[in-house]
Amino acid sequence: MRQSKLATKTLKETPKDADNISAALLIRAGFIDKLSAGIYSFLPLGLMVLKKIENIIRTEMNAIDGQEILMPALQPRENWDLTSRYDLDFIFKVKSKLEKEFVLGATHEEIVAPIAHKMIYSYRDLPLYLYQIQTKFRDETRTKGGLLRSREFSMKDLYSFHTDEKDLDSYYEKAKEAYFKVFNRCGIGNLTVLTYSSGGAFSKFSHEFQTITESGEDLIYLCKKCNIAINKEIIEEQKVCPQCEAKDFEIKKAIEVGNIFKLGTKFSAPFEVNYLDEKGEKKDVIMGCYGIGPSRVLGTIIEVHHDEKGMIWPEAVAPFRVHLLSLGESENVKNKAEEIYQDLTAKNIEVLFDDREESAGVKFADSDLMGIPYRVIVSEKTLAQDSVGVKKRSEKEEKLIKTEKLLEMLK
Amino acid sequence: MRQSKLATKTLKETPKDADNISAALLIRAGFIDKLSAGIYSFLPLGLMVLKKIENIIRTEMNAIDGQEILMPALQPRENWDLTSRYDLDFIFKVKSKLEKEFVLGATHEEIVAPIAHKMIYSYRDLPLYLYQIQTKFRDETRTKGGLLRSREFSMKDLYSFHTDEKDLDSYYEKAKEAYFKVFNRCGIGNLTVLTYSSGGAFSKFSHEFQTITESGEDLIYLCKKCNIAINKEIIEEQKVCPQCEAKDFEIKKAIEVGNIFKLGTKFSAPFEVNYLDEKGEKKDVIMGCYGIGPSRVLGTIIEVHHDEKGMIWPEAVAPFRVHLLSLGESENVKNKAEEIYQDLTAKNIEVLFDDREESAGVKFADSDLMGIPYRVIVSEKTLAQDSVGVKKRSEKEEKLIKTEKLLEMLK
Repeated sequence: MRQSKLATKTLKETPKDADNISAALLIRAGFIDKLSAGIYSFLPLGLMVLKKIENIIRTEMNAIDGQEILMPALQPRENWDLTSRYDLDFIFKVKSKLEKEFVLGATHEEIVAPIAHKMIYSYRDLPLYLYQIQTKFRDETRTKGGLLRSREFSMKDLYSFHTDEKDLDSYYEKAKEAYFKVFNRCGIGNLTVLTYSSGGAFSKFSHEFQTITESGEDLIYLCKKCNIAINKEIIEEQKVCPQCEAKDFEIKKAIEVGNIFKLGTKFSAPFEVNYLDEKGEKKDVIMGCYGIGPSRVLGTIIEVHHDEKGMIWPEAVAPFRVHLLSLGESENVKNKAEEIYQDLTAKNIEVLFDDREESAGVKFADSDLMGIPYRVIVSEKTLAQDSVGVKKRSEKEEKLIKTEKLLEMLK
Repeated sequence: MRQSKLATKTLKETPKDADNISAALLIRAGFIDKLSAGIYSFLPLGLMVLKKIENIIRTEMNAIDGQEILMPALQPRENWDLTSRYDLDFIFKVKSKLEKEFVLGATHEEIVAPIAHKMIYSYRDLPLYLYQIQTKFRDETRTKGGLLRSREFSMKDLYSFHTDEKDLDSYYEKAKEAYFKVFNRCGIGNLTVLTYSSGGAFSKFSHEFQTITESGEDLIYLCKKCNIAINKEIIEEQKVCPQCEAKDFEIKKAIEVGNIFKLGTKFSAPFEVNYLDEKGEKKDVIMGCYGIGPSRVLGTIIEVHHDEKGMIWPEAVAPFRVHLLSLGESENVKNKAEEIYQDLTAKNIEVLFDDREESAGVKFADSDLMGIPYRVIVSEKTLAQDSVGVKKRSEKEEKLIKTEKLLEMLK
């Protein structure tokens, strides 16, 4: 894509109402736009990243047999009355002019359970895994969280349905692995730890996936012995590591990027999600739920990967792989840059081509801010050596590479 | 995909609360699920179709230089006060616990205009084309419209920004062409007509795209002379065809599947979307807007393409291209069907493989209901002739085709 055509303006100054470093950089670079506290638009570059994250999640959910569906945001109050969750503090409520009352979905157990009720007759229909990537709403009290805590946000929620606890347990472990694959592919796997958190009536614990970073709002307790973490609530309750019973912890700040939860029959009972077992006896289905917020992951990636000049996107989620900069007024440079742009594009390499009439300084600053993984520089100086300059955003050094070798290097 | 694993149950009976034929068939075939009046979930097969329609629209919007963004559903009341549209009858309103008031977006002029304000400084930044595919909300009075008139629905809305009216006019014509490409690719182009409808302060007319079908709720007047249509409002006002002034019309029922509208400065003025022209003078930007509802298009396709047995999907939007049916208990048949399934899948042909332990009657009925374009039958009878049965859903006749020729035929 030509940057001269891109509907994006970068800002020199950090916006005054940016909530945190990721929001500040994403707004400055023109990836997102703040509409209101906790409510953001995704502009072209931001949406490209969001879709890449969502597609990584989609692939990994499909790999553990998830079937994608799409449920509504407008949910009848009756469904929430049935689970006694209508009065939850963070629920947005809507009344239609026909006096019908709705909840704006902050989660979808109340919707997926009645769907599963229609899909499941017998044990042969189980297990069943349904997920969606959809927009959720939460009436947050604190609204200064950028993409890390928004009132409207993208969410992947998977719901699993099982004949028994053992089957749930085994899928729960598979989901853990799938989650780490997601976070690895998004470039935050090495900083993300499995964290014990409180369960519910059905199981003592649930699990969060917490990405360690100074800007995190959660405190987690890393067990020095067994490499897992425990959240504050659990540590205050039981003082020891639930896995190895050690008492030696390192305290870290972290961002919760995902969570998984054994629901048992909490939602299957009220919505009569049951099945006939092999003996023809009716039994309640056992449920699990598994959440990741793609927009929160996007923010977290930048909290973790940036420097004083801007963002540093991991390759798998970067809006483009290559940022091609044409420097100076020379026709020779312009033609060569155009040729490289055409070549790379023809090879399906994603290129943002800075073909604007701007100074080298402006182009470098924007490029640093946007954080595309490879910067390729075409100038009189590089062409004098039949070369282009290549610099990875994550490294300091620029290398000269013969123009004809560029494609090979990027393959 | 194996049908035995598909999270979908077909229903033998038409659901009692289905609003129209498309909703009835889509629910019976397990493509969608009705949550509440005008509110539907998309189940796996329905979501596959919805995404194909959205991708067709996306491709055609990109082809006319649209840049995709994603704007929020939660919109501050202030933005709607500024355009005096807060009290529109079909707007859902939401109040947060922090007393902040929101509108649930039924359209996005109030959001895209302030975004464009930040993107546009001078004439060099124009024209600009922004679009999104996003969920919209309307508090409908009549809620029995299936996917044709929902309270929550998918919408593609593109907004164009121009220096002057002439530039808008020329883009408006391009958008018309792009819209017909969309409807052609979705298999409803031959029944869809450009229809004059009322404009606003800025232009006398806007245009709807109306798909002619008996189940349509709109009345359109087809000009027998010049092949365009006029909606009821306009015909009552001016009695003659706005294009050729003829007075001879054929009246048809139709569904509005899209509309395009010249907005002029209606939204750019209040949100100060202006630019500096070549002389450095500040001028208001001229806007246009262009809508297509993918979920409504989905319903319309079925209103138009079905028979007494079920749906008949056009190939480009079908959830799968091939429905492979393995009939009977024979191991030979099962193995051959499995082999064909693997072969087709390896060639990237989308196959739904009915590997269930069901009778031929059940499989045929489900297949007719689901409406996948090609049905491939493997049975003792077909294999006795080294063949498979092939029947297009849109045709009556089944042909025997040598197994080794199948791939070739489907290519």
